[in-house]
Amino acid sequence: MNTTKDKLVKSITGRDEDFAQWYTDVCRKAELMDYTVAKGFIIYRPYGYAIWENIQRYLDARFKETGHENVYMPLLIPESLFNKEAEHVAGFAPETAIVTIGGKEPLAERLIIRPTSEVLFCDHYAKVVSSYRDLPKKYNQWCSVVRWEKTTRPFLRGSEFLWQEGHTIHATEAEARAEVLGMLDIYNNLGRNLLAIPFVMGRKTDKEKFAGAVETYSIEALMHDGKALQSGTTHYFGTGFAEHFGIGFQDKDGTNKPVHQTSWGVSTRLIGALIMVHGDDSGLVLPPYVAPTQIVIVPIMPGKPGVMEQAAALKEALTQRQFRVKLDDSDKSPGWKFSEYEMKGVPLRIEIGPRDLETGECVIARRFDNEKIRVKLDAVGDLVPGMLADIHQKMYDKAKANVEANTRPAFTYEEFKSLIENQPGYVKMMWCGNRECEDKIKEDTTATSRCLPFHQEHLGDVCPVCGREAVAEVYFAKAY
Amino acid sequence: MNTTKDKLVKSITGRDEDFAQWYTDVCRKAELMDYTVAKGFIIYRPYGYAIWENIQRYLDARFKETGHENVYMPLLIPESLFNKEAEHVAGFAPETAIVTIGGKEPLAERLIIRPTSEVLFCDHYAKVVSSYRDLPKKYNQWCSVVRWEKTTRPFLRGSEFLWQEGHTIHATEAEARAEVLGMLDIYNNLGRNLLAIPFVMGRKTDKEKFAGAVETYSIEALMHDGKALQSGTTHYFGTGFAEHFGIGFQDKDGTNKPVHQTSWGVSTRLIGALIMVHGDDSGLVLPPYVAPTQIVIVPIMPGKPGVMEQAAALKEALTQRQFRVKLDDSDKSPGWKFSEYEMKGVPLRIEIGPRDLETGECVIARRFDNEKIRVKLDAVGDLVPGMLADIHQKMYDKAKANVEANTRPAFTYEEFKSLIENQPGYVKMMWCGNRECEDKIKEDTTATSRCLPFHQEHLGDVCPVCGREAVAEVYFAKAY
Repeated sequence: MNTTKDKLVKSITGRDEDFAQWYTDVCRKAELMDYTVAKGFIIYRPYGYAIWENIQRYLDARFKETGHENVYMPLLIPESLFNKEAEHVAGFAPETAIVTIGGKEPLAERLIIRPTSEVLFCDHYAKVVSSYRDLPKKYNQWCSVVRWEKTTRPFLRGSEFLWQEGHTIHATEAEARAEVLGMLDIYNNLGRNLLAIPFVMGRKTDKEKFAGAVETYSIEALMHDGKALQSGTTHYFGTGFAEHFGIGFQDKDGTNKPVHQTSWGVSTRLIGALIMVHGDDSGLVLPPYVAPTQIVIVPIMPGKPGVMEQAAALKEALTQRQFRVKLDDSDKSPGWKFSEYEMKGVPLRIEIGPRDLETGECVIARRFDNEKIRVKLDAVGDLVPGMLADIHQKMYDKAKANVEANTRPAFTYEEFKSLIENQPGYVKMMWCGNRECEDKIKEDTTATSRCLPFHQEHLGDVCPVCGREAVAEVYFAKAY
Repeated sequence: MNTTKDKLVKSITGRDEDFAQWYTDVCRKAELMDYTVAKGFIIYRPYGYAIWENIQRYLDARFKETGHENVYMPLLIPESLFNKEAEHVAGFAPETAIVTIGGKEPLAERLIIRPTSEVLFCDHYAKVVSSYRDLPKKYNQWCSVVRWEKTTRPFLRGSEFLWQEGHTIHATEAEARAEVLGMLDIYNNLGRNLLAIPFVMGRKTDKEKFAGAVETYSIEALMHDGKALQSGTTHYFGTGFAEHFGIGFQDKDGTNKPVHQTSWGVSTRLIGALIMVHGDDSGLVLPPYVAPTQIVIVPIMPGKPGVMEQAAALKEALTQRQFRVKLDDSDKSPGWKFSEYEMKGVPLRIEIGPRDLETGECVIARRFDNEKIRVKLDAVGDLVPGMLADIHQKMYDKAKANVEANTRPAFTYEEFKSLIENQPGYVKMMWCGNRECEDKIKEDTTATSRCLPFHQEHLGDVCPVCGREAVAEVYFAKAY
């Protein structure tokens, strides 16, 4: 029979040795997830799910502050309703899972497991909205969706994943456009305040935007291996869906108008971003505010008089101050515990042993930079907030410095190709606005346009690919 | 085109005229839910979903305080794994929805949409548990499940519903049994503290318990029409699942043992209970602590100087005190708004008009008992906590008085049959412990045993049905 030790003691693959294998190792060894017998479907284990809960708590509060309401739409969509989106949106064809049997009988109409709930929101809005008094409707849903993926990776691409999907309708274009940018800001602040991930925010090109959207915006993150990860999107749909689904309202002036629509979402992909932005050769490194356990207390020689009592008292004191604290009083060795919580990326480890009791002190070790300090036990509570804030800021700064160091301008197409092939990260370049140049770049290098960043730099007057007049600066990268 | 007014102004069916129709009317008119094109699947609209969120928030905090962790298991279960439960549990055969196509291709193995996730937890536990150090595992999951129901009613019985399912494993029987009773207590306190519903707690008979369980416990609520509603269950499974799925551990003494297992759950059925316990002819009546909106402020003659400003200031002051407050500043008439928030069961309505401003007062109206008081505006904040507490207590007391008034002892089987046919509520009676008497009761009257209440009364020495020696007092009722 395996013991806990056998399962955990193996070290993980080096991060720079084989990044993909390192990633998978961290997912498993940090106990974030496990595979299941159904291919492409994973279990979110307590430690991984708790990260998602912290992301949910942060976002849900922001959504509600800004007037959004949560709903729950059915899991299953009749095929005829589902196809109504494909009729409207050329190019909308996610691979789906289809229910053909219910209660042992073949179904008269097949049911699609939601890959997204757009059509359900449209169908409902068409029923319940008739007057300007009914607007806006700003609904959000937390759920899982199913997309039948051939190749899957934990958190990054799965046949089922957890997400939130916001779907809103408004009386005016201006209000809907403000919504789309406002939600993008909330996502960007999630990176700034919770995940310690600096996102590049911008607008997608027509080639990369969602097929049914007038505009798509995204937040893009840069992984340690130099590839970009699209981490969230917001869409302005105009009145296209409204006209197709009949979502109209009588305005104050008595005229009938279609609504202006948006949608926006982030998913458990953000957990993948956390791993690949911050992790190191010892495993996960979690930013303090999203960490399920912020502080782990490890008693040294717990059998000695007073050690466990003091450790328990410290846990109680820190818990009362609202920190997320764990006291590991198991009979594993301290060294074993150190590795385990390093693997899990717990921001602070506090060691208390018999020698410390004599001096009324303990040792605090920081996961992020391995700094260790000796402090008086009764000073710990006052020190922790500053330490967490400092770690958060340093992690953000480090990630931001990495983005800056790995964002390079290209002034010729030869330079672009050389950078994109030989250097990690983004290449920024002027662009003529034509899809054919994006197509050529993708064909030549596999890189894609990530976005037209909001903060535009003027790198030149022409598109280096075709020599035509440039209309915008674009970030390109190889991406997940 | 319909206006908002057309849709809302119709009154609802009288509660005592046609209880079933009244129930459906309240569900729709209070905007708790809506039907969808997929039969048996409902939309949880914002107001209905917010009730569920408040239940979740209460329970999730209790679950975590008592050491439980949330996880997320896959939506789909391979048929071979699914059947492993049926092999173990005779009589386990929920009607299911089955996925046979994924990514346009027929699947090699069919996938069942979870009707419950027992087998997924068992399969995972078997993989990750090997030592006493790994125990206990106390996991919970918030999700939706699908059961293919022929006849459905909003919240009470649906092809899809929202729930939580706890699944725990323990090293000893004593610990597992304590878990099962502890979780039942948490459910009972949910009724006491949040829902204002007095539950009858007790153990199920063998006939009514879950087929795979050693013991099943339940909380039972009494609806206004006199029928009982099973509102939550907890199960002790012994080591049966552990042996069937191979969930074993090496104990401290070096021997290998199977784990002792539990499960427990409540669902959105609780929303149905709230409606049917507290509602009246004007619609929903929500207990204050579960109400999504606790206070609605309705400005009277909002065009008059100062009215909207004062209403907004009051909203701000009450929101800062953490009450859930809504200011309805729409252009609907006050009378219209009064009916709307009565229908939605908002506990307190505050009216502010120009006359009130002169005296610095407002009117507070209580939904539960229609009491109205005039109070100084600057006293409102201090008064509200006491009013909410008072309403909660009175609602609980009223519901409890209703249970007590409608729980009648039967000393002969003739008396039992007469009571169960002619009186609403529970009939309590001694019972011999044999299934054949329960079967006879069900056949004769359609009533079922609800539970063996923890607080046992000695009503006699024999079972009135068969005349054999009685072993326990049982509550019987017609039930949803």
